[in-house]
Formats: sequence, C-alpha cells, structure tokens
Amino acid sequence: MELKTKGNLATFFEARNVAVIGSFKEEWSGGYGVIKNLLNFRFSGHIYPVNPYYSEVLGMPVYPTINHVADSIDLVIVITPSQVVPTVIEQCAQKGIKAAIIVSDGFAETNREGAKLQQHVMNIARNAGLRIIGPNTIGITNTANCLVTTPYFTGYNKIQRGSVAYASQTGIVGAQALPLEDYGYPISKICDFGNKCDVNEIDLLEYLAVDPETRVIAMHLEDIKDSRQFIDIARRIVVDKPVLILKPGRSQAAAKAVASHTGSLAGTDQIYDSAFTQAGIVRLNTWQEFLDIPKVFASQPLPTGNRLAIVTVSGAAGIMAIDAAMENGLVIAQLSSATIDRLAKISPRLVSNPVDIGQVAPFISDFPQALESVIATVLADDSVDCAIIVLWAALAADALDTSDAFRRLKQQGSKPMAIWIYGPKLSAKEELTRQLEALGLPTYLNLETAAKALGIAASYAKFKSRLEQ
Amino acid sequence: MELKTKGNLATFFEARNVAVIGSFKEEWSGGYGVIKNLLNFRFSGHIYPVNPYYSEVLGMPVYPTINHVADSIDLVIVITPSQVVPTVIEQCAQKGIKAAIIVSDGFAETNREGAKLQQHVMNIARNAGLRIIGPNTIGITNTANCLVTTPYFTGYNKIQRGSVAYASQTGIVGAQALPLEDYGYPISKICDFGNKCDVNEIDLLEYLAVDPETRVIAMHLEDIKDSRQFIDIARRIVVDKPVLILKPGRSQAAAKAVASHTGSLAGTDQIYDSAFTQAGIVRLNTWQEFLDIPKVFASQPLPTGNRLAIVTVSGAAGIMAIDAAMENGLVIAQLSSATIDRLAKISPRLVSNPVDIGQVAPFISDFPQALESVIATVLADDSVDCAIIVLWAALAADALDTSDAFRRLKQQGSKPMAIWIYGPKLSAKEELTRQLEALGLPTYLNLETAAKALGIAASYAKFKSRLEQ
Repeated sequence: MELKTKGNLATFFEARNVAVIGSFKEEWSGGYGVIKNLLNFRFSGHIYPVNPYYSEVLGMPVYPTINHVADSIDLVIVITPSQVVPTVIEQCAQKGIKAAIIVSDGFAETNREGAKLQQHVMNIARNAGLRIIGPNTIGITNTANCLVTTPYFTGYNKIQRGSVAYASQTGIVGAQALPLEDYGYPISKICDFGNKCDVNEIDLLEYLAVDPETRVIAMHLEDIKDSRQFIDIARRIVVDKPVLILKPGRSQAAAKAVASHTGSLAGTDQIYDSAFTQAGIVRLNTWQEFLDIPKVFASQPLPTGNRLAIVTVSGAAGIMAIDAAMENGLVIAQLSSATIDRLAKISPRLVSNPVDIGQVAPFISDFPQALESVIATVLADDSVDCAIIVLWAALAADALDTSDAFRRLKQQGSKPMAIWIYGPKLSAKEELTRQLEALGLPTYLNLETAAKALGIAASYAKFKSRLEQ
Repeated sequence: MELKTKGNLATFFEARNVAVIGSFKEEWSGGYGVIKNLLNFRFSGHIYPVNPYYSEVLGMPVYPTINHVADSIDLVIVITPSQVVPTVIEQCAQKGIKAAIIVSDGFAETNREGAKLQQHVMNIARNAGLRIIGPNTIGITNTANCLVTTPYFTGYNKIQRGSVAYASQTGIVGAQALPLEDYGYPISKICDFGNKCDVNEIDLLEYLAVDPETRVIAMHLEDIKDSRQFIDIARRIVVDKPVLILKPGRSQAAAKAVASHTGSLAGTDQIYDSAFTQAGIVRLNTWQEFLDIPKVFASQPLPTGNRLAIVTVSGAAGIMAIDAAMENGLVIAQLSSATIDRLAKISPRLVSNPVDIGQVAPFISDFPQALESVIATVLADDSVDCAIIVLWAALAADALDTSDAFRRLKQQGSKPMAIWIYGPKLSAKEELTRQLEALGLPTYLNLETAAKALGIAASYAKFKSRLEQ
C-alpha cells in the first residue's frame, strides 16, 4: 500500500469554504462559539453560517439551509442536537460536500439508541462519499490556515504555528485542555477523533505523513481500530517523522474501563508494547510526557549519540540528573581534557561533568555570560551529543538576559538541549519558560521528563540511522 | 537509646537571641540579607548584628564583636569569609554560645585546604560544646518563631506555618529554590545540613521526632553518615510520623558523583532500598515527588485502605488515573449499589467508578454543586478509602466556586483526596491550586504524583496499623 501523496484528510484540514450548522445564540456551546473562534483565530478561508432561525451572526449573514449556499463547501461543522444530525448530513450529501465534523454529542458514547443514530448518520454519509470526523469531538485545528472547529472559548486565540501534530479520541488534546498558548507550544495540526465513526488514527497518520508542516506526531489512543495496519503505516513514517503514542490501559482495570468507554477491545498491553518497539514507535506513559516530550523534536537537531553533558546551577540537581539520564538510556559524557582546560579558565572549580556552575556563581560578575560560555564549551566537545541545563529563576525581569544567552547558543548549536528550571517564583519560572520555548528550546516541568525527552531523541536517532544504513 | 525529650537541636530552632556576624553592605549575599529576611519574616526573638566595621544596619546598632553583646546568645549565624570563621567561632565559644550556623562557603566542598579549615573550626567548637550546622549552608527555617538564617531575598516573606519538615544537605531545599510561598506549602521546619561537619540527619530526626509542629518528615540525602543508627531511629519515628527520603544515587554513575561531591561513600543502593522498606521509610525518586508527596500527610486523615474512587471531568484522565493508581498500590473501588443509585439521581449517566462528571457537565446548571454532591456521595461509600479528583480550570475567577465546594467537603470529610488540575490557562490552574492548598487539599502538577501520594499514604497507614496491632 502506497502512502497517498496528499492524504485523504486534506479536505478537512485545508478547507477554504467552511459551513457552520448550529445554534447562533450567544454562548460558547454552539455554532456561535465555533464562528467566534474562527474569527478570533483569523481563519484564512470563508465562513458560511447555516440555521433557519437566524438571519445574522457576528456580522455575517446566516443561510437557512446548506442548499441556500451558492458556493461549494469543502467542510461542514455540525453542532446541532443529535436528532437533527441525520437530516443535516443528508442535505450536505445532496450538496456534494465531502467532509463533515460532527461536534454534537449524544451518539454511541451515551447508549444503544445513540449508537443506532450514529450508524444511521454513517450510512447516509458513506453512500455519498462524505467523510466524517466525530461525532462527539472538538474536531481539528490547523495553524497553517488558522482553522479551528471547537466551540470552547479559552485557548484558541494564538496557538503558535509549529511542527508538532497532536491527536486523541477525546477533547483532552485540545487547546481548551492544554496550556498551548501560555507555553507557546509549536503546533501544526490537532485532531480529536471523537467516537471515530469514520475517520480514525490510520487516516490521520496517512495525512500527517505527507503534511509538510508536521515533523513529529503524538497520539493519545485508548484503542486502535486496526492495529496491524496502523503499525504497518507507522513503521514507514518513523523513518521521516517520530511517532509517539500515549496508550493507557497498561493495567487490566484500565483496559476494562477503555473497553466500556470506547466499546472496543483495548488489546493485550504487552502485545502493543513489543509491536510499538519493533516498529520504532515511541510509547509514552503519562499525560505530562505526552505534553512535554514531542517538542524535543520540534525545532532542535537530533542528537548523534546518547552522551549527555549536564550544566547545572545546583550540584544536587546535577546528581539527580545523572540518575534520570541513566534510567532513560543516556550516558554521562566524559569531557575531553581540552574542554576541562577551557572550563577551568572560566573557573578552576569547573572540573567535571555534571558542570556545577552554581558553586562558582558568587565569584562571577556576569552570570548569563559565564553560563553561555560553559554551555558552548561543553557542546563543542566531540564527546558530547546533547545537554541537560538546570537553571534557577527568581525574578521574571532576569529572564531576558538568560534567554539572550540561549538565543546565541541556539543559533550556533547543532546539538539538542533540554532545560529544567526551578526556583521560588512561579511567575519567574513561567516567564523564562515562555522565552526559551519561543526560541525552540524545550523546557520541562520536571528534570526526569527533560532526561526522558533527550533519551527518546537519542534512541530515535539511533533507530533511524540503523534504518538508513 | 531513648529519644531525647526535646531533641538536641532546640537551641538552633527555638533560639530567642540570635547574633548575625557578617558584612552589612546592602546586598543579598551577606549578613545584611540575613537580617533583612529575619525582619521581613517577623522573627519573634532579638537580633544582634555583629561587625567591627559598621555601627548600624537596618535601624539596629551593630556590635563590634560578639563579646560586646551583653545578653546571652542562643544562636549565632556566621556569614563571613571562610578565613575569618575560626576566630569568630573561637569568640563564640568563649562567650559560651552553644549553637552556630556557618552559612559561609569555602570549606570541605572546595579543596583540601578548605577541608583542613573546616576541621580546625570543628575542633574549636567541639572543645567548647558548641554545635555547628554547616558550613556551606542556607541554615534553617522555623515557621513557629519565624526564624530564617539565609541571605537569599526571594521566597522568605510568608512561608505558611504547617506540619511538613524538609531537610537536605544542599540549599535546594530552601524557599529560594521551591515555590513554597506561591503554593502555600505547610512548613514546620527546614534544615540544610550543608557540609555536615557536625549536625547531621540523625540529630535532626531526633529533634523532629519530638517537635509538636511536625507531622511528616521529608529528607533529601545524598549520603547518610551512620546509616544503621539513622534507620534505627527512623524505625521508631515512623510509628508517629511518616519519614520520606529522596536518596539519589540509584545509578552507579550518580553514586560516584555523590562520593566526589560529599567525600563520603554513597553505599550500595539496593541495601538502602531494603533497609528503608523494612524500617517503614518511604523512598522518593524525584525532586517533584519530594516537593509534592509529603503534603498528602499534612492536613488530611490517613486512608483506612487502598480502595480509590476517581471523580473526573475528563473520561480520558479517568482511565489514565486507573493506570497510575494500579501502579502505585491502589485498587479501583467497587461502588455500592446505594451509591450508584444516589449518583444516578444527579445524572443517569454516572454509573461507575471512575465517575466521569465531565460528560454530564453540559446538562448541569450548577456544576460546582453537582461536583460537590458527586464527591460527597462517593466518599460516603464504605467501599471507598480515598479519592483522586480531576478538575478543569479555565478562568481564575471560577476558582472561588470550586474551592467553596471543597471547603465544605473538607469539613465533612474523613477520607483523603488528591487533586489534579488541567486546563488552558496556567493562571487559572495556579489560582485554583493556591485556594485548594490553602484548604489543606493537596493539588498536583501531574496525575501520577497524585496517585503515588495516595498510594504512599495508604501503604503507610497499613504499615502503621500493623505495628500498632
């Protein structure tokens, strides 16, 4: 099976003419919310609101039915009561529309009647060649054309365009659930499959494989529809783009809950584990990892090995970083004598890896400059492949000096870094985090995730180079 | 060996007359910083600044030497250049002072000369029965009398008085390193042993054992001076107060780094592991756990078993919580039919544990009220011992309604809860976190730490009840 050149979800993500069918009462839960988000997010295409009971919404004319829209429609977003959905989809099919996102809930996730209704909608759509995402979904986000399809108000104003694609079968992957804006996460696409009545993880994988915006794919999957096919496709994608999967259900109790939640068998966990490993798919274990680890691939080079340098303002954190590194497949780099000589010129106390710059801080007049020299020196060492940097942030105002140093390091650098910041003030930590993330430097809530991110990057790089040989 | 009734560190923590010897130049790194912190923190005792080159600091008279102070001194804080410390300690000994915190660095942590200097100071002190914390330390904090001994400016204004004691051999345990104020951590005592030339973890354990303010003891220890004695004492303390130890050096590489860092053998890691388990000491693995887990013991009852209820606004998070719970020794409670009947009255879709209240949120007018009823209902079930609550925070302004509900739950409740909050806005998450922490409800950065905290609480409760039988 060949990967399609454009993927079959292009109609969804790259839609130019978008119809929104639902209530336009001024509240977040309906079509009004979707249109407001499209406007706020500055969607680059045309919006066609559809509802027989309204004439205007947010300054736009409302069409009584989809048939009243003269232009062709690429994508329709349906957010009506579930009972109305079959009629709406029927009308969309008649107009020849090929893509619909059914945001509405009240389908298979509720009860048997809901499941029947979903099947009925699906039959109408299939006969017409109309593809559906959902129902019971927040839909999709595309930062390239500023398309959003969710009615949630918070989180959808200024998501940063970048190279991480996120997907899930629940809304917990959306910007209303994740601090994407606050941390400037570099997002290419987001997709919530919802009940997965039609479009599923395989379709999305095929699309993301050829999406030039996406460099790393992260999926939260409670179940996988056709795991053999999924793994087959993923296996070919990972040569170009890392695929990271958060698959809950490690415990039997959770697997059972998944079965009752999604109505599908979650599968034996160990089978997934070994299939993922063979295919080069990275398995993530926690929500925090899902949020934090993909970005290590977003705007940094891959490490060419697993030899880690640790530059730290705390000796204690340096030792904790060693434990975390060793437990994530990294080794502690042996610095060359030339590097140690260079470090000694910055301070005679800097003698080994971890490089504890905190102990010499009181004797240094320009700390950001010294930090920059130390990091540049260790990264220039041929025996170093990547680095963990431990910073202390106490004042938000100090963030600029530090991030200036990292801007220069990032420009020079061809080796990846992961950063952990500790300190007394959340505000200071967050300001520095924002500035470093804006530079494309991944900054972590905890030291262990920083180590795991670099460990995963090193092991992916090794996997990839083996495939390329 | 009997535990001392008052512990031998009372002179340090409960000092009333405190001398500060160091530079009073207006900067954070000297005696000026220490005195400013004592004033800001509203130390309840008397402060005696000592320095021959100043006559006044922050409105207080400065004494040329410690001998010029007519009053008796309980504790002296030394923050002079290291070369001057022997003379200063000699004078303190002559005055009959029994406790000194040597904040100054430049001792055993630097080189052999520094180690000799430290030994020299120690000899003077030992002959005079003068006990020393440090050198190379931020010293101690006592929230009961508002004593602080660090020159760091940030973090020491309003640490909340509570029942968690923190200790470490580095400054990373202090309020300049941890967001104690921002999260309102409930602190009783903090101690940084520094180079541990005299006072060490055994002395502190003996003191904290009988400190009425302390209900839980958390220590970060890179090495343990006399591990047999330490474990003997801890074994007797854990009957009353949980003892949690973050001991890095799990990997050989880290153990080696510890050895060169502290000059002592870190010991074989597995030996510690089993000795800790036998003694009922909880071992923590990460800095985040060290910061987040002790508070589960601070102001909540112990669970009487390990049966967990999960109340969640996200079905996906509910399933992840099951995995995390099972991996931390908890089991998923089977709700009674009476409980399920009561839940069904709130919404017919609430049928099992995890209780997914998010799916019914759109149909509920007063969400905080419904959340409160659901949590109260599951906690009242005899088959439930503890609960994880997953909340969504989008607007800081909404925090009050939610925390009002939790205030009532906390008042009624005799079962512990751990809370995880997700959402699009860090500001909203932090506001709700602050409010819930102020109620004595532990709130976590990630779901897995919440599960681990309850798992540790349940296993400690079991350990304790076995001992009491």
